[in-house]
Amino acid sequence: MVSIPFQNSAQERQRARDLGVKPGILTPGKYNAITDVAGVSVGQKTLNIGDSIRTGVTVILPHQGNLFKEKVPAGIFVGNGFGKSIGTTQIEELGNIESPIALTNTLNAFLVANALVDYTLSIPENSGIRSVNPIVGETNDGWLNDIRGRHVQTSDVMEAINIATTKEVLEGNVGAGTGTNTLGFKGGIGTSSRVLPKAKGGYTVGVLVQTNFGGILRINGAPVGKELNNYYMANDVPYQVDGSCMIIIATDAPLSSRNLQRLARRSFLAFGAVGSFSSNGSGDYSIAFSTHKDVRVPHDPEAIEQNSPEVLNDFMSPLFLAVFEATEEAIYNSMFKAEDIVGQKGRKMKALPIKETLEILDKYKAREN
Amino acid sequence: MVSIPFQNSAQERQRARDLGVKPGILTPGKYNAITDVAGVSVGQKTLNIGDSIRTGVTVILPHQGNLFKEKVPAGIFVGNGFGKSIGTTQIEELGNIESPIALTNTLNAFLVANALVDYTLSIPENSGIRSVNPIVGETNDGWLNDIRGRHVQTSDVMEAINIATTKEVLEGNVGAGTGTNTLGFKGGIGTSSRVLPKAKGGYTVGVLVQTNFGGILRINGAPVGKELNNYYMANDVPYQVDGSCMIIIATDAPLSSRNLQRLARRSFLAFGAVGSFSSNGSGDYSIAFSTHKDVRVPHDPEAIEQNSPEVLNDFMSPLFLAVFEATEEAIYNSMFKAEDIVGQKGRKMKALPIKETLEILDKYKAREN
Amino acid sequence: MVSIPFQNSAQERQRARDLGVKPGILTPGKYNAITDVAGVSVGQKTLNIGDSIRTGVTVILPHQGNLFKEKVPAGIFVGNGFGKSIGTTQIEELGNIESPIALTNTLNAFLVANALVDYTLSIPENSGIRSVNPIVGETNDGWLNDIRGRHVQTSDVMEAINIATTKEVLEGNVGAGTGTNTLGFKGGIGTSSRVLPKAKGGYTVGVLVQTNFGGILRINGAPVGKELNNYYMANDVPYQVDGSCMIIIATDAPLSSRNLQRLARRSFLAFGAVGSFSSNGSGDYSIAFSTHKDVRVPHDPEAIEQNSPEVLNDFMSPLFLAVFEATEEAIYNSMFKAEDIVGQKGRKMKALPIKETLEILDKYKAREN
Amino acid sequence: MVSIPFQNSAQERQRARDLGVKPGILTPGKYNAITDVAGVSVGQKTLNIGDSIRTGVTVILPHQGNLFKEKVPAGIFVGNGFGKSIGTTQIEELGNIESPIALTNTLNAFLVANALVDYTLSIPENSGIRSVNPIVGETNDGWLNDIRGRHVQTSDVMEAINIATTKEVLEGNVGAGTGTNTLGFKGGIGTSSRVLPKAKGGYTVGVLVQTNFGGILRINGAPVGKELNNYYMANDVPYQVDGSCMIIIATDAPLSSRNLQRLARRSFLAFGAVGSFSSNGSGDYSIAFSTHKDVRVPHDPEAIEQNSPEVLNDFMSPLFLAVFEATEEAIYNSMFKAEDIVGQKGRKMKALPIKETLEILDKYKAREN
Repeated sequence: MVSIPFQNSAQERQRARDLGVKPGILTPGKYNAITDVAGVSVGQKTLNIGDSIRTGVTVILPHQGNLFKEKVPAGIFVGNGFGKSIGTTQIEELGNIESPIALTNTLNAFLVANALVDYTLSIPENSGIRSVNPIVGETNDGWLNDIRGRHVQTSDVMEAINIATTKEVLEGNVGAGTGTNTLGFKGGIGTSSRVLPKAKGGYTVGVLVQTNFGGILRINGAPVGKELNNYYMANDVPYQVDGSCMIIIATDAPLSSRNLQRLARRSFLAFGAVGSFSSNGSGDYSIAFSTHKDVRVPHDPEAIEQNSPEVLNDFMSPLFLAVFEATEEAIYNSMFKAEDIVGQKGRKMKALPIKETLEILDKYKAREN
Repeated sequence: MVSIPFQNSAQERQRARDLGVKPGILTPGKYNAITDVAGVSVGQKTLNIGDSIRTGVTVILPHQGNLFKEKVPAGIFVGNGFGKSIGTTQIEELGNIESPIALTNTLNAFLVANALVDYTLSIPENSGIRSVNPIVGETNDGWLNDIRGRHVQTSDVMEAINIATTKEVLEGNVGAGTGTNTLGFKGGIGTSSRVLPKAKGGYTVGVLVQTNFGGILRINGAPVGKELNNYYMANDVPYQVDGSCMIIIATDAPLSSRNLQRLARRSFLAFGAVGSFSSNGSGDYSIAFSTHKDVRVPHDPEAIEQNSPEVLNDFMSPLFLAVFEATEEAIYNSMFKAEDIVGQKGRKMKALPIKETLEILDKYKAREN
Repeated sequence: MVSIPFQNSAQERQRARDLGVKPGILTPGKYNAITDVAGVSVGQKTLNIGDSIRTGVTVILPHQGNLFKEKVPAGIFVGNGFGKSIGTTQIEELGNIESPIALTNTLNAFLVANALVDYTLSIPENSGIRSVNPIVGETNDGWLNDIRGRHVQTSDVMEAINIATTKEVLEGNVGAGTGTNTLGFKGGIGTSSRVLPKAKGGYTVGVLVQTNFGGILRINGAPVGKELNNYYMANDVPYQVDGSCMIIIATDAPLSSRNLQRLARRSFLAFGAVGSFSSNGSGDYSIAFSTHKDVRVPHDPEAIEQNSPEVLNDFMSPLFLAVFEATEEAIYNSMFKAEDIVGQKGRKMKALPIKETLEILDKYKAREN
Repeated sequence: MVSIPFQNSAQERQRARDLGVKPGILTPGKYNAITDVAGVSVGQKTLNIGDSIRTGVTVILPHQGNLFKEKVPAGIFVGNGFGKSIGTTQIEELGNIESPIALTNTLNAFLVANALVDYTLSIPENSGIRSVNPIVGETNDGWLNDIRGRHVQTSDVMEAINIATTKEVLEGNVGAGTGTNTLGFKGGIGTSSRVLPKAKGGYTVGVLVQTNFGGILRINGAPVGKELNNYYMANDVPYQVDGSCMIIIATDAPLSSRNLQRLARRSFLAFGAVGSFSSNGSGDYSIAFSTHKDVRVPHDPEAIEQNSPEVLNDFMSPLFLAVFEATEEAIYNSMFKAEDIVGQKGRKMKALPIKETLEILDKYKAREN
């Protein structure tokens, strides 16, 4: 591996697109974030404490109302089920989500799910409910983080929900991405979005990822992992191939749970673009939901039938392209924005070295200058 | 509904078979319980406290060693995914189970899962592990139980594990079945087993159920629900059709995860025999595992390949019959052994009235005398 | 096995309900057939030729228009995938059906699928189409029928489509049920329906089955198989446990493909009620579709989005009950209406013996007189 | 689109690797083909006849014995179920394949499946069998080919089986790839393989693809589609985005059907690498099988249990990488080897222009010189 000095964690780092890395052909939304889908908010609590706590929680709220009372259609794709995601079977069966989605570390998933129960029960108009299906995704940050300590508390989840914003989303070593690593470098939280042309429906697709997986890094086609001699099965390089990736997808297109499931499946393809092969130990899940007002599912319906709009199968392809592109760029953002970190037992994980990476990207004409 | 006096909860009640109800053609094992599969143990902690706590936890341990270090092949079938079962995707992906299986109430599922993490981490030889996939099933006992209180604590799970026995299993209003109701009556925990003839492999199949669902009760073919005028959609009868059923299946047959999944699927058929149609709100899950020593999956394998025996597809039918029969009888046991109960807000749930039920069974020649 | 004289195949046999066998609590429609769902038609071509041809084809048309141009939402459940059903993955992916559904024998499935392609291409307004997804189900009638001969021809499929009727449906040894056997006796085609009360939506559910599987026959709770000493694993009784069951479900309720899939899953429970455990060799598939006009999927859509009504999850339970009951009764009809038959190599399969069966049903009070 | 002269179809074209395109880090086998997995053979019949027949059939035989009597473990992944693949549910249920795998055009799938039945029944030692599960994959070549004519005959399938070879495999416009198009250019049949280092098991993975899908072509990271202005949603470029891709995977690693399914899933990631997003109309299926002698499933087993070796989950990652790389390279081969073609109605499809493509690859340093 090329020797790269350990970088100051206070550095200011730019997003992929700001550095000229613009995968695909579609245009991002205003924030180039999952929050470009109107009503979606993201909140994060970062636990970067002492020598060994490098973890956190990231929550995504599909809309700003009572999620339990107004559920959103949703679909899930399990790329690799070696993970502890919570709430999956009910999404598949009922086709909707009735709680915030929280991301955290593997061993904290259950306490975080319980915190989402707390949150849902605490809403005054939910005083009578006896059931809720919390949605939690996780990846294993146990190399840098004292994962056995399960340091994320209920209060952290509540705080993340309370500070959730519909605007810019923090990326890199934040929230559930604080202690992760990806493709040989520091990973974290990343996000991106795409807006379809009016003729294709004009819909917005936003993606947020928690990256923590291995492979042979490519950035916009350039073989960065090989050039930096830091990749899976490289000679004499210690390498964390396992981990996981959570992919959360929002869209304002009125989609059925079936087409949301299909949308989720396409995000898996972005792994191929960035050089991951979904290793045995990488629990990779994609969850997609629609925020369209007229497809919401009332908890207390007034009639047996409900009328809803739905994008027909024939018009799904542009949405598939959008989720593919936004996932790829979100992964890059999670790496470009992540910073060098020292974790438990003095373990160091370097972030993607910006200078060297840009040189490689230029060599391979993989970015615009 | 026929008026039946509320029964003394201290009554002694017998199991279905003791009353002549013997569904099917195969023979049960020694205990007629899941513990007839050698090495399987069951532990239960019942929380029947004050006016409103009617819940608990039931744990099933596939073997008496370190489950994390020696995983067991497993399969899962989701009959109705309206539930919060935890650990399902990893069972499907990796084909095994590495923790005890715990059953509890819906809103407690996450704390109980976290307790299984505690348990696994606490085993000295697991000191280095950073991941574990706890398996939790649940049903909603929120009609009788103050479910929002999430009264099952980590210590309750630990206690259930510690007192787990490989012998007789308590049934009825115990553990995770304390506050459930089934087919119009008090439900609970039930168990049963079948032993195949030597020519069919001589294998044992054991089933444990947590019953909490509705329908139109049939017992060994007799229309008990109709006769007692207590069934779904009966005129003027308030009726809890929803709830859930968890079905845990053990066998000593050396089965692959694929054939364990097929085995799990057959247990669903027992719903048809007892008069359930898996209502919208009934989250019905079946989990099957093999205890055979030579199919266990080491956490620290010594070689890339492992040699294992496997029952071939062609010989699965007798096992399918066994699981069908044992599930049917386990459901009956959960009802025959359950007792009248008063829960939160003074709500009363009657157990199956023995005298009237036996009269009906006799009328329909549905039991042996 | 009780010795029963071989019966005259010209006998007149009655349906289950006409003999007092009335499973469940809901009311059938006018014909007590899948054709009670308005617009659904069924056509059958029976090949009972010479010494060894005992097969045929049964087609179900979801509506009387151009199915390719106006597709119907559909769902599928695979109870046991040991079968050769054709068209399944596209139903799952796109959530609809665009051709008639044909049932036939195992080895003829492919030629029959090709005939459905012929049929679809032959419709003048389909002159430009280059793709169609024919739906074919099958069971193995190779014990009575010279199945290797693949005697069902394209012309037979066309004839079945041409004579399809929206009225009474022939049952027993007809069409795709000509050479099948079920639960120890002659099986065949059966059908039944249920109509929900207005307060539950007033929807109709119709079921058609092609029965060809084993187990331990129960009729409306009565242990007919045991009483006649003709069941799986009975001593000294040669018994065909394998085979398959195809279950086709129609409803006029406006259902999404997701809820149609859930509906299909419930039909599997009827196996438990009639004493089947879905043996290894029984390829059991259920396909459900909605005929509601406003949920049809146009092949040439005029807009990206379509508005459609949909029954909400919360109101599915009565439909689940309806499909369970109608499937159980359809299976009985397939047996009550089937007749004794002699097939290839002089093999004889007796129909359910009416007189003895009624005596057993009376003994167990399993029918109304 | 850059104007490229229509090329002579008699040209000699080279494979990707011969031109310096070497995706990934692992080493191909001797033939860089699916036939590097010992015992696997491939046979193809090309129908390039007159003005409008541009189709064919490609068969893959997992071993050279009687496939029905010695089945091979298999798994399937459905990337996009908008296709007519035949035999899928039985692969999922029983975990094996018992016939050759044939690829052809969409509307011919059923006749080709019937031909595989003919083939299987015609083997003398199969004289008693009454069932077989033929495996057929397809893509839609109906733009270039008179697909409605279903020109592939039983004799073509037989001929393909008879001439199947365990050596070099023809690529490009051959067999089932004769009339396909991919990523804006002529597609076809492609193949590639990878051999793992001894320390990783030393296994071989071979892949064969039938390419017929759209997207935005990347070759080894270079944006070839954009540079040639020929891609999905490019302005003013008529473009076939739909179609399908069949991916057939062979390995000599002893894998269970579960891990073969996981292997199949990884091949889907190669779409991401080459710039496909699995459009709505692209029916994408991957089928993987193991040729290891000790995991074969006998049709006439001698005992209830069978002992077999199996690669443990922990060692699957190198195999996942291998299938990812081999699929990517197989897709490139299908394009590099394909030639310009004129099909029905005078429609022309250009092959990837070699000179221009190499210039682009050099510009982006995406090949070795």
